[in-house]
Amino acid sequence: MAANPAAPAATPTKIRHSDAASLSEQYDAVRGFTEEFCEPLNTEDYVVQTVENVSPTKWHLAHTTWFFETFILKDHVSSYEPLNETYAYLFNSYYIQAGERHCRDRRGYISRPTVSEVYAYRAHVDDAMHALMSSASGKQMHELAPLIEIGLHHEQQHQELMVTDMKHVLSVNPLRPAYRDDLTRAESREAPALQWVGFDEGVYEIGFDDEDPDAGFCYDNETPRHREFLESFQLANRLVTCGEYLEFMRDGGYERPELWLSAGWAMVQEKEWTEPFYWEAHDDQYYLYTLGGLREVNPAEPVSHLSYYEAEAFARWADARLPTEAEWEIASRGVPLEGNFVDEGHFHPQPLPEDAEGAVPELGDGPLHQMFGDVWEWTRSHYSPYPGYEPLPGALGEYNGKFMCGQFVLRGGSCATSRSHIRRTYRNFFHPDEAWQFMGLRLARDAG
Amino acid sequence: MAANPAAPAATPTKIRHSDAASLSEQYDAVRGFTEEFCEPLNTEDYVVQTVENVSPTKWHLAHTTWFFETFILKDHVSSYEPLNETYAYLFNSYYIQAGERHCRDRRGYISRPTVSEVYAYRAHVDDAMHALMSSASGKQMHELAPLIEIGLHHEQQHQELMVTDMKHVLSVNPLRPAYRDDLTRAESREAPALQWVGFDEGVYEIGFDDEDPDAGFCYDNETPRHREFLESFQLANRLVTCGEYLEFMRDGGYERPELWLSAGWAMVQEKEWTEPFYWEAHDDQYYLYTLGGLREVNPAEPVSHLSYYEAEAFARWADARLPTEAEWEIASRGVPLEGNFVDEGHFHPQPLPEDAEGAVPELGDGPLHQMFGDVWEWTRSHYSPYPGYEPLPGALGEYNGKFMCGQFVLRGGSCATSRSHIRRTYRNFFHPDEAWQFMGLRLARDAG
Amino acid sequence: MAANPAAPAATPTKIRHSDAASLSEQYDAVRGFTEEFCEPLNTEDYVVQTVENVSPTKWHLAHTTWFFETFILKDHVSSYEPLNETYAYLFNSYYIQAGERHCRDRRGYISRPTVSEVYAYRAHVDDAMHALMSSASGKQMHELAPLIEIGLHHEQQHQELMVTDMKHVLSVNPLRPAYRDDLTRAESREAPALQWVGFDEGVYEIGFDDEDPDAGFCYDNETPRHREFLESFQLANRLVTCGEYLEFMRDGGYERPELWLSAGWAMVQEKEWTEPFYWEAHDDQYYLYTLGGLREVNPAEPVSHLSYYEAEAFARWADARLPTEAEWEIASRGVPLEGNFVDEGHFHPQPLPEDAEGAVPELGDGPLHQMFGDVWEWTRSHYSPYPGYEPLPGALGEYNGKFMCGQFVLRGGSCATSRSHIRRTYRNFFHPDEAWQFMGLRLARDAG
Amino acid sequence: MAANPAAPAATPTKIRHSDAASLSEQYDAVRGFTEEFCEPLNTEDYVVQTVENVSPTKWHLAHTTWFFETFILKDHVSSYEPLNETYAYLFNSYYIQAGERHCRDRRGYISRPTVSEVYAYRAHVDDAMHALMSSASGKQMHELAPLIEIGLHHEQQHQELMVTDMKHVLSVNPLRPAYRDDLTRAESREAPALQWVGFDEGVYEIGFDDEDPDAGFCYDNETPRHREFLESFQLANRLVTCGEYLEFMRDGGYERPELWLSAGWAMVQEKEWTEPFYWEAHDDQYYLYTLGGLREVNPAEPVSHLSYYEAEAFARWADARLPTEAEWEIASRGVPLEGNFVDEGHFHPQPLPEDAEGAVPELGDGPLHQMFGDVWEWTRSHYSPYPGYEPLPGALGEYNGKFMCGQFVLRGGSCATSRSHIRRTYRNFFHPDEAWQFMGLRLARDAG
Repeated sequence: MAANPAAPAATPTKIRHSDAASLSEQYDAVRGFTEEFCEPLNTEDYVVQTVENVSPTKWHLAHTTWFFETFILKDHVSSYEPLNETYAYLFNSYYIQAGERHCRDRRGYISRPTVSEVYAYRAHVDDAMHALMSSASGKQMHELAPLIEIGLHHEQQHQELMVTDMKHVLSVNPLRPAYRDDLTRAESREAPALQWVGFDEGVYEIGFDDEDPDAGFCYDNETPRHREFLESFQLANRLVTCGEYLEFMRDGGYERPELWLSAGWAMVQEKEWTEPFYWEAHDDQYYLYTLGGLREVNPAEPVSHLSYYEAEAFARWADARLPTEAEWEIASRGVPLEGNFVDEGHFHPQPLPEDAEGAVPELGDGPLHQMFGDVWEWTRSHYSPYPGYEPLPGALGEYNGKFMCGQFVLRGGSCATSRSHIRRTYRNFFHPDEAWQFMGLRLARDAG
Repeated sequence: MAANPAAPAATPTKIRHSDAASLSEQYDAVRGFTEEFCEPLNTEDYVVQTVENVSPTKWHLAHTTWFFETFILKDHVSSYEPLNETYAYLFNSYYIQAGERHCRDRRGYISRPTVSEVYAYRAHVDDAMHALMSSASGKQMHELAPLIEIGLHHEQQHQELMVTDMKHVLSVNPLRPAYRDDLTRAESREAPALQWVGFDEGVYEIGFDDEDPDAGFCYDNETPRHREFLESFQLANRLVTCGEYLEFMRDGGYERPELWLSAGWAMVQEKEWTEPFYWEAHDDQYYLYTLGGLREVNPAEPVSHLSYYEAEAFARWADARLPTEAEWEIASRGVPLEGNFVDEGHFHPQPLPEDAEGAVPELGDGPLHQMFGDVWEWTRSHYSPYPGYEPLPGALGEYNGKFMCGQFVLRGGSCATSRSHIRRTYRNFFHPDEAWQFMGLRLARDAG
Repeated sequence: MAANPAAPAATPTKIRHSDAASLSEQYDAVRGFTEEFCEPLNTEDYVVQTVENVSPTKWHLAHTTWFFETFILKDHVSSYEPLNETYAYLFNSYYIQAGERHCRDRRGYISRPTVSEVYAYRAHVDDAMHALMSSASGKQMHELAPLIEIGLHHEQQHQELMVTDMKHVLSVNPLRPAYRDDLTRAESREAPALQWVGFDEGVYEIGFDDEDPDAGFCYDNETPRHREFLESFQLANRLVTCGEYLEFMRDGGYERPELWLSAGWAMVQEKEWTEPFYWEAHDDQYYLYTLGGLREVNPAEPVSHLSYYEAEAFARWADARLPTEAEWEIASRGVPLEGNFVDEGHFHPQPLPEDAEGAVPELGDGPLHQMFGDVWEWTRSHYSPYPGYEPLPGALGEYNGKFMCGQFVLRGGSCATSRSHIRRTYRNFFHPDEAWQFMGLRLARDAG
Repeated sequence: MAANPAAPAATPTKIRHSDAASLSEQYDAVRGFTEEFCEPLNTEDYVVQTVENVSPTKWHLAHTTWFFETFILKDHVSSYEPLNETYAYLFNSYYIQAGERHCRDRRGYISRPTVSEVYAYRAHVDDAMHALMSSASGKQMHELAPLIEIGLHHEQQHQELMVTDMKHVLSVNPLRPAYRDDLTRAESREAPALQWVGFDEGVYEIGFDDEDPDAGFCYDNETPRHREFLESFQLANRLVTCGEYLEFMRDGGYERPELWLSAGWAMVQEKEWTEPFYWEAHDDQYYLYTLGGLREVNPAEPVSHLSYYEAEAFARWADARLPTEAEWEIASRGVPLEGNFVDEGHFHPQPLPEDAEGAVPELGDGPLHQMFGDVWEWTRSHYSPYPGYEPLPGALGEYNGKFMCGQFVLRGGSCATSRSHIRRTYRNFFHPDEAWQFMGLRLARDAG
């Protein structure tokens, strides 16, 4: 039988959606978690911006709300009345096609709207969203679901930034306040010896398979699925630890230009780097600032808050290299999508559990530990478009593509990432000098 | 008969004092006014720092408290226990001899202590101060009074900064919130014609007479009283108005380099100045931001928020000049110390009252209007030490003397100054590019 | 049978060499061309540094000489006496392992050594090199040849910089002097219509084959030869022309943020870019500065002095993209290594010759024009190490590898490149905001 | 009897003039000395600009020529033909009313006109000036003489800058070349003990008496002569020496914030000042760069190249202060206008001669040594207009008045000043952080 040309085309978007009921539940869960994170904060904590990259909590709360207002309510609910017209200007981040916006580096100058006004803004938009989701027809929902889903993933990304930005805000305060005083602290002990896991050469399929109707949500930058040839390689079975990084430091890591990229060495000298971000030395002992306050460095836990430059220099010192993002993705395929995510409530990378040791395999057999959660893993891959990449149309096309210059890809999520947010094909990206995210590394090397 | 070596020496300080009871009342009045000013604020408003010169309200509240703690309680009350040892670091401004301090440009990064913790700090220090003042012996009080008095004048200076800093914080917010919505607004009308008042040449005594035991408090920079020769000169009987400044603007004031000092013209070009600070043009009409919100420019009111460069260029355009500080001081001697101070609650310069017009005199007879309050008046005098000047000993000597470079003197107080704070000999000083204070000008010229 | 330990080992270096006689001739040819380029210059022209990236001619003359002195004479001629010990400090560029060096941004502050002293330095080193090459044994020559060869290629790279740096130095002079007044100027005419040439998907071998003993010289960054999978693609048969770029400009190219990478758009706004580097508008006509002086823009000639950002934005506007470096390399394989190099003496890109038009093929048949010479072609490939890449040992390992961050690869050479310097596998690299080299683009697109 | 309106008015200018013949001789002498100074230079030395304040010698040669061309030849010689129209743009310094000008910080980017073209420009203008001076009528000469005289004094100021700028250019070169190798070097010995000379309080006349027809040339900023009241004061009978300054350094001078102005201390920390400009320490010995090369510090010679901040801090450390400019001027009245000027050919401050010692007087009797020449003496006087000051009309009015902000006055000339250029009323002025001129200090104090 011939195809019916009047039948609705396959969804043109790459974004998968769910039915309205479950979407509404997801909406409440994601929006709720944002506010749950804020519970321990004082009003004053919401206001501060320490550097351009670090936005006030108040701004995150409002911007994620603006996203639903701008891309869904204003476009799809004719009766929608904004709470305040100026918010459209104040809470746009970088969507040029969504209009003029307030300077990013001045977000900390805005004492109004107050925190309670921002919560009122959230409630206003949530009400309108609930009304929309409960009244939308199936056809409308078909159209809206991908937008709602991107809005929720967008909010999850900002949840991660809220964690890392609050860490920065509290850390620069000479009082060194903790976000929460009741966070657990992992025992300090020896990390299991590093093992290499091997992978064969070949042509691999890389990226998100958006032809698969059950594949779920992804960002445009993970597509299209395409082929890459990989030479055989090996990957470390766990993350680099603080203890290993201390060895690098004691071996003159920050004083030997031959270990560094030229731009990295310039940064070491200009910024006078002598240890990772958030580390500080007192009386021959290294401490690091955590969301639970200042703590002694635990040698067994994954090293975090490394810039690309530091990760890359460490790898050279260790006679290894960073993996490419394709290598990482291939290696991740057999690994369960589990780990130390924000859902665990540690807000800090954790050492491998005791029983991980016994499980360490022979070369080539796996398993790989800590592939998900704990710290984002720097890859040596520059953040570039996949062959055949097309950004989403309109303002949402500004989400990813326009940043494909000068940044490196990180994989796997961190202890500040939501478990429901991460994927094996997920591409995070940052500039090589940035370290305020939970960022670390796993070593790779060419197959002998 | 030989001098009695046991007799108390003449007070070595230049600072006059009062009896303990009245001092305690003054203490309560000044400290209370600080908190009264804050009543209309939201918690969030206390936190923000927009530029290096503009400190958070929270910081002002704490720093003025730190001053009493550091220079009085820690030195004179052996049993005094600080509330928090870190505050000594956080709330020192620039007193190098008082120890290390937190960077001035990072005051807006500090969310803790919270506003209520800062109020608790104030209460803690106030309690200790009250206990000290009520229990001190006459001899102790003799010693302490000058320190308490300088602490109160110091707090009054910070009250003025709290007004001007809050104005800046609210003004950069695109919502343009008002500090208070109930501030009165002067009627717009014609300013009375400017008249010149003449003064004779001669050797004059300038500065505060600290040999006079009834003279009251002054800062060290107003001393010693000394002689200066002045050529005969004339002073305008009122301040320059917004209407007059608009004429300057319409005559190309911001486009004609020959009207400007070289450094001023460089600033005009670099910062693209085209009107005074806080002014903005909408549809052929000029508005200015006030603590009562955005308002149309009132031509009759004194022009304010001018940098030295603008005041100086205006004077040249008007075929006149700025007065020297000695000229201003001599001229002020016959003028009652009254005017539009912060006590009036306008928080904005006011036009001359109607009945001022009738009173305008023939040349040489006076009176001079608006010499006190409304706006600080830029003089052409560089802020330099008087002949024979000696700073106070110790950390308090850092109050004034070390700033005697690159700044110009302003006289007369403003609508943000306390009436009890100002004197005819009072020397305020700012850099020539600064305009966030209530600053304006009065014209002077050489006698024909 | 045991291996003969006396047998010569396979050359451990990747650098191929020639016999001493021909090497000596090459040495004279390359060193001579450097000085030939300088003949039209005045003494004053040798001294100037306009921006950090642009070195004085005097410095290039000395630094290329320092290279031979440092890496060959000091290491291999025990009797060698440097002319001046301080030169080692003054004329090191960035080789950290070769010792301390004079700041790059201060090369224009050094009036001494004078130009004639620099020529004397060249002669001193040339004499020593000639003596070495004429007296070296075969075995010594075997060892030295790769170093001499890298020195000559290094000097050729600096010859290209001498051309582009001198262009910049003369261009910023309001007198707009020409390097030479006798340079020919191509006729202005229509460029032939652009045609697409197609290439099939597959696993390709990319990079320099340093296992081939006849392959000649290459830099370490072109190795190792390795496999990459390419999807099918198409490449334009010629470079983008000034005429096409003018269309982009007239279509608002510099005013439409949606065409630009985020970092590129920031640059457009910060630097107020409105046309390519060296272009200027006078009375509705565009002119560009060339080494022959200021000229009207010729629509038929390849557009040059584009940053990566501009090339990338143009490609997006044209509904195409930049090629990857692997695509470019595959496509170049059938194209003769000929073109408008510095050897032609144009010092400027040239329009396609008339007879090129007739030759334009059907899709997939070729030929590709202007693949070599004229302008370096920006690729979308970030400058990264090839799989298995190893830098040379020692200070020469700083030549390439340490710059593998934040730069993009360009291919094909330019009108300032020596014909004997270029290869199909040659990887040039610059930051995305740089445009003072002869840089342009060729369009690519995914196969339909 | 009524005034005759046809009678010639008194010369309206403040500038005195000479007859044409002597003026022509002065012209040749001053212009000739400029070129004489350049004789030891290489062509390359003329081109370099190291910092914004330091202009290339080539530029000084051309700018002083431009001055005569612009203010005399173009206005007064109708047949005058400029050599090159672009020079008017290239060689204007800061005279806004004389048209657009090339950026000050890019003077070192201009390789053309070449040095010989600049000399040709000088000859072209000199020829026209000679023709004008030899043919001008008495009445014309009356009008021209003040302009020529200001042109010659202007050139003498640039001669001083040529000395100090060349010193800077050569000093930043790691080869540390000398301007001349044959400059004499004063013997190192003990300086005579410092003595104080007293002056009485009173009303004094200050400034140049331009009512006196025989008074000669002055700049507008030295007028009008006016009255100032001075309290009694004392002045040191000689300059501060390097030996005394070393004591200050050894006593922690650069580490004690209480000795410094706030802005000065900020500079000490930001620039990491630990000794005067041009000083450097090697193995426990201090050296200073001179125009004769690097030399050991001679404790007996006047300390030079001090910023205002350093001079002011030294004076505070020495329990003294800097003099005001009026004090200096009054004190200078009885002192012969002799000293170590550029005419002596030392190009460096000299220690007091042996026989100076015997001559040291009792307090109040004088004489004062080293008042003229050696080093400019920082005063504590901000560079401000004298009462009644009027700048010259037109572009020449930009010579002085527009710089009256943020600078301090220096008096007495230096070893780089021409003897015929200096006066007792001469006011030099620089910013408080500048030290590349020959600048030092003499102590003053209030009369006991």
